[in-house]
Amino acid sequence: MSLLVVGSIALDTIETPFGRADMVAGGSAVYISAAASYFTAPIRLVGVVGSDFPKSEIEFLESRGIDLAGLQTIEGGKTFHWSGRYHYDLNQRDTLDTQLNVFEKFDPVLPASYRKSRYILLGNIDPVLERRVIESMEQKPELVICDTMNFWIEGKHDELLRTLKKVDVIIVNDSEARLLSSEPNLVKAAKKIMNLGPRIVIIKKGEHGALLFTGDTIFSAPAFPLEFIYDPTGAGDAFAGGFVGHLARTEDLSGQNLKRAVIYGSVMASFSVTKFGIAGLKELSDIEILGRYRDFIELSRVGE
Amino acid sequence: MSLLVVGSIALDTIETPFGRADMVAGGSAVYISAAASYFTAPIRLVGVVGSDFPKSEIEFLESRGIDLAGLQTIEGGKTFHWSGRYHYDLNQRDTLDTQLNVFEKFDPVLPASYRKSRYILLGNIDPVLERRVIESMEQKPELVICDTMNFWIEGKHDELLRTLKKVDVIIVNDSEARLLSSEPNLVKAAKKIMNLGPRIVIIKKGEHGALLFTGDTIFSAPAFPLEFIYDPTGAGDAFAGGFVGHLARTEDLSGQNLKRAVIYGSVMASFSVTKFGIAGLKELSDIEILGRYRDFIELSRVGE
Repeated sequence: MSLLVVGSIALDTIETPFGRADMVAGGSAVYISAAASYFTAPIRLVGVVGSDFPKSEIEFLESRGIDLAGLQTIEGGKTFHWSGRYHYDLNQRDTLDTQLNVFEKFDPVLPASYRKSRYILLGNIDPVLERRVIESMEQKPELVICDTMNFWIEGKHDELLRTLKKVDVIIVNDSEARLLSSEPNLVKAAKKIMNLGPRIVIIKKGEHGALLFTGDTIFSAPAFPLEFIYDPTGAGDAFAGGFVGHLARTEDLSGQNLKRAVIYGSVMASFSVTKFGIAGLKELSDIEILGRYRDFIELSRVGE
Repeated sequence: MSLLVVGSIALDTIETPFGRADMVAGGSAVYISAAASYFTAPIRLVGVVGSDFPKSEIEFLESRGIDLAGLQTIEGGKTFHWSGRYHYDLNQRDTLDTQLNVFEKFDPVLPASYRKSRYILLGNIDPVLERRVIESMEQKPELVICDTMNFWIEGKHDELLRTLKKVDVIIVNDSEARLLSSEPNLVKAAKKIMNLGPRIVIIKKGEHGALLFTGDTIFSAPAFPLEFIYDPTGAGDAFAGGFVGHLARTEDLSGQNLKRAVIYGSVMASFSVTKFGIAGLKELSDIEILGRYRDFIELSRVGE
């Protein structure tokens, strides 16, 4: 089933206690598309890069079958750049540099061929743009998923609230959920966020897994206890990609299948963090993904 | 099956964003015994109080069928006192006051009737005393479980290492596991700790649940996403009590049953935090406990 992904495309410089990667492809749209490409097709990407974005990375996205008709390339412009350094336990990071470059004036224009996409994932962009994308669809999508962050929750609060009214699923991390709801308790926070529009709330907790709230049901997914984590960058976007990818593949929005989708999201996040940048999402097999899914199920299964 | 519990007994003054409790019964031995009393008997408590410890709390412990032959009362002495204040999200707390009082010279002498206990839970006391208890047993227990904390990991490191060689199960929180192993990654940390003696490692992660490491198997238990948490004090001890209580009740140390025990530990922690002090462990029914256990299973269950 068709999936539209709109988000940032970046060149990231990442330092972790285990190494460093310079100017590697990143950004929410790239992680989401790469992760989702193991589940569904077509994936239609909307984003903007400068002429410095490596051809090899474009070719990688094409090799994953991702439709790049909506990829804007600004000749002479520079790609959005983020640089950060992770602390020793990988749970905290400092942003060393952010250069918006061509992303500053990003206008997510949808090619005509994109406007009937059935699933939409809006990856953490200005809520005004997120809403514009939703409103430019020719028919109502099956599911609109939006990711957001502190920057928008604080800086464009009213615009975000307007956008959330048009969103089915919101994916946030725990601190974002608390900020958006002004509520420290995550169960109460999720309920408050549901009152803002989304009927499904997913709260990511990094190395502690994720919570899925649907109606009165709560599902707790573990994170995979990995022995080797090299780079947490993009884990949340890989999660979103696996989540929406599984839903678009199965076309099943039942509560039971939403849980499976959360596990598939966690699976893709667990692969993403084992290498720098998107390298962990580059050469996976269906067998590996299914194997990790089963490991996840086993991880929290209690026999009768 | 018989359970020996050795630990602190305290009068706590607790402030949380939701209220305050003054000089209420607490301490590891109290939380552990109260939680375990819903699962197994006899429970034999060893601890020390001053003459200020309320008679009503002694009566409560007796009403739970807890054997107090090992409870030392120092006439004219004052009970160990701890006072703390929790931050708004309950994940951090400041200790405002600690007065060891009679606990400073605590010498855990076991009554003769205690020395054949089959399960032992050592609740976060000086590792020298923990070892002395283990060595004073007349026969090798089925299972020796020990809790420890930063204070002993840093202050009595070598003694703790000697004690750990005699321990089957260690229960620590995530920061303690990292400190004890000098390893930020929890999977590696657990492996290192296993090399110190315990064949089973449980890492508690507060509101994020707990991890059980046995051999090469990892089990991830969620925490219960509670809407109302009033006082996290003693949650880790309530966990330990539910964990050992289920094991002593079933006399089954299989990997499968250890997982169930971790869930029962989480169940008792989830009840403990809903009221101040040990009030949350005072009037539970078997039906409530089983119901919460089933809710826990459902919380992380993914249908096929």
